[in-house]
Amino acid sequence: MSESGWERLWTDVHLATMTDPSMGIVPGGAIAASGDRIAWVGRAADLPAEPERLAGDVIRCGGAWLTPGLIDCHTHIVYGGDRTREFRRRLRGESYADIARAGGGIMSTVRATRGASNEELTAGAAARAAELSAWGVTTIEVKSGYGLDPETELRMLEVAAGLARHVPADISPTLLAAHAVPPEYAHRRRDYVRLIVDEIVPAAREQGHATAVDAFCEDIAFTPEESRAVLEAGIAAGLGGRLHADQLSDFGGGALAASVGARSADHLEHVSPEGVRAMAGAEVCAVLLPGAAYTLGADRRPPVASLRRAGVTMALASDANPGSSPITHVGVILNLACILFGLSPEEALLGFTAAAARVLGLERDRGTLEPGKRADLALWNVADLAELCCRVGASPLKALVKNGDPVRPGLIM
Amino acid sequence: MSESGWERLWTDVHLATMTDPSMGIVPGGAIAASGDRIAWVGRAADLPAEPERLAGDVIRCGGAWLTPGLIDCHTHIVYGGDRTREFRRRLRGESYADIARAGGGIMSTVRATRGASNEELTAGAAARAAELSAWGVTTIEVKSGYGLDPETELRMLEVAAGLARHVPADISPTLLAAHAVPPEYAHRRRDYVRLIVDEIVPAAREQGHATAVDAFCEDIAFTPEESRAVLEAGIAAGLGGRLHADQLSDFGGGALAASVGARSADHLEHVSPEGVRAMAGAEVCAVLLPGAAYTLGADRRPPVASLRRAGVTMALASDANPGSSPITHVGVILNLACILFGLSPEEALLGFTAAAARVLGLERDRGTLEPGKRADLALWNVADLAELCCRVGASPLKALVKNGDPVRPGLIM
Repeated sequence: MSESGWERLWTDVHLATMTDPSMGIVPGGAIAASGDRIAWVGRAADLPAEPERLAGDVIRCGGAWLTPGLIDCHTHIVYGGDRTREFRRRLRGESYADIARAGGGIMSTVRATRGASNEELTAGAAARAAELSAWGVTTIEVKSGYGLDPETELRMLEVAAGLARHVPADISPTLLAAHAVPPEYAHRRRDYVRLIVDEIVPAAREQGHATAVDAFCEDIAFTPEESRAVLEAGIAAGLGGRLHADQLSDFGGGALAASVGARSADHLEHVSPEGVRAMAGAEVCAVLLPGAAYTLGADRRPPVASLRRAGVTMALASDANPGSSPITHVGVILNLACILFGLSPEEALLGFTAAAARVLGLERDRGTLEPGKRADLALWNVADLAELCCRVGASPLKALVKNGDPVRPGLIM
Repeated sequence: MSESGWERLWTDVHLATMTDPSMGIVPGGAIAASGDRIAWVGRAADLPAEPERLAGDVIRCGGAWLTPGLIDCHTHIVYGGDRTREFRRRLRGESYADIARAGGGIMSTVRATRGASNEELTAGAAARAAELSAWGVTTIEVKSGYGLDPETELRMLEVAAGLARHVPADISPTLLAAHAVPPEYAHRRRDYVRLIVDEIVPAAREQGHATAVDAFCEDIAFTPEESRAVLEAGIAAGLGGRLHADQLSDFGGGALAASVGARSADHLEHVSPEGVRAMAGAEVCAVLLPGAAYTLGADRRPPVASLRRAGVTMALASDANPGSSPITHVGVILNLACILFGLSPEEALLGFTAAAARVLGLERDRGTLEPGKRADLALWNVADLAELCCRVGASPLKALVKNGDPVRPGLIM
């Protein structure tokens, strides 16, 4: 054993600890892990002894940059079928909402998902998770919401949880039974909301995979009152609250998220000034999803300047899904966040680490490089971390560490 | 030897031959190669005998899609330095033109490129070419234009030509000495144009790498008269004509390209109706570069509907460069072409194959799947080729064939 008890020490590395708005930069840094935890973080010059006396395994990183493993806090990567035909329809001018009303969009994925086996769902989702892993993602939130019946919603949560066997990432499943009103309840919306509250939420709690509950609060989905009922039931059952809020219209989503004590309100292209104030007051995080705004050709951007001024924590996520954000390339999301939404590279990278951890209720466990936090580390082949946001090409990930162990990114073979 | 003399036969494959506006689809197709040429293309059912009797090597493709190798007909992948700092400046609101006028932009890359060795330039460019190769690109146009002096311009062309040793792709170098007025000629623009016409063009011809000449016709670069002088000199020396036209303002670029008999006018966000008419009349191709329009947050789109109506051939390219389009991900370019510019998936894919071959003057050699054409083939793991345009993630390339031989995409080790 070494003097320190550290198992591994990474040195000759620049750190972005993500502990302050400038990303907590430590040039010429070093970081040590014991078990699955970070044991020491600081300047290499401040190490208490020669690296080789401190750890059994010393990894010299050639001046690369090191960040916490990325956290994608909003995805829909478990689904059946594909939506290429819908892409063509949108190119011909049909809107996302029109397609949804005509039974396409989410409902076409619901039909395919209900018809897919767990093995089929797992194969597709694992391939998508592997693409995120290749971008340094070590924690992935995955929503249900293409089942819309008790059996398939629970099946989706089970498939989501099982993805952790296929990629070196932790999975944070979210129950999104309130994603759309299923056709069999088209004329009995109230009964579907009741089904969610009375049956699906308790069953998901019993199953034990879901860590959060979410609802799509929108004209084409659920009213604020319906969304509130679902969120309150989920939160009462011990789940974290999330909300698809104010994406296509100002539907009062930001304020609703605040009033139920949700962890986040997501999308927010149309959130009102009152919604922003309410979110700030209740410490609700904003989750920005530029992949969807871009793919749908949205004419509005979330009010980033207002959110910033109000001190709302801004997370950033892929929203990876088959229709409105068929994007599993984290570099593109970072780039869109800067170019389309006006985030700084620092805000974008904090949004994919520290802020995303807060959204998942994991801020005490991960998202920053601090002693005691989980040793999920991403090492990058870049001279400046802003390159992650500026260049759009192959992933510059150099190495990945999960729970203190070096791992191969992508599918576990 | 087989009965047919074919060396290889790919079957159980769907073909997009790119021979008509619907991409010349042949479901259940087969394609054979002899040497570096396509020997046979058609429906598998029409093969003259059992596959194994027809070719020594029969490759069953499991129902994958097969296209011609992609052709990226507009890139600037040879350069020194990086422009991450400029990305931050643009996010803070400075315009591309303002940064250029202040000595940033192209000029910052010129300084870094002049100071880089051939080995350094090759290493960076080969990595970028490898990313294109991973997307099925087998022909890459590469421009000079970051030297702006005879020695460095020729050095860039030499480095470009040499990339063919590092990736399984043919390189089509283009002389772009008229990319910007170098600082040492700031007050003697006319002398720099004369230097290009009298020295650089003849020297490039003597060197033998360049196949085309190009100029940046824009307020911040060269006037139409200056651009005309450069293009006429290059074309008289036997090079194909290209023009960076009407990107930031209507500068008469489309009409100029037509009047000198250029092969293409590129960018075209601001081309006038007269410009489009002139291009159609002179059979000048349009090269659409959505990566730059997106990265620069352009407020105009090229007039795709007018170009389509006028029958102008529309090619599509990455414009991969360190500043205005730091994008080496072909899927993103295809996606931007559809979402930002309104191309159909068919137009986007034709733009990266048959149309791009025309731009490079290679339409008799490649760009479509026809007997006699070069056997550069890309095999894709997709159910519908539109997925190449619709999904943004890892490359779905399944296999690559260059000059009739299966090759590993990416860097040649």
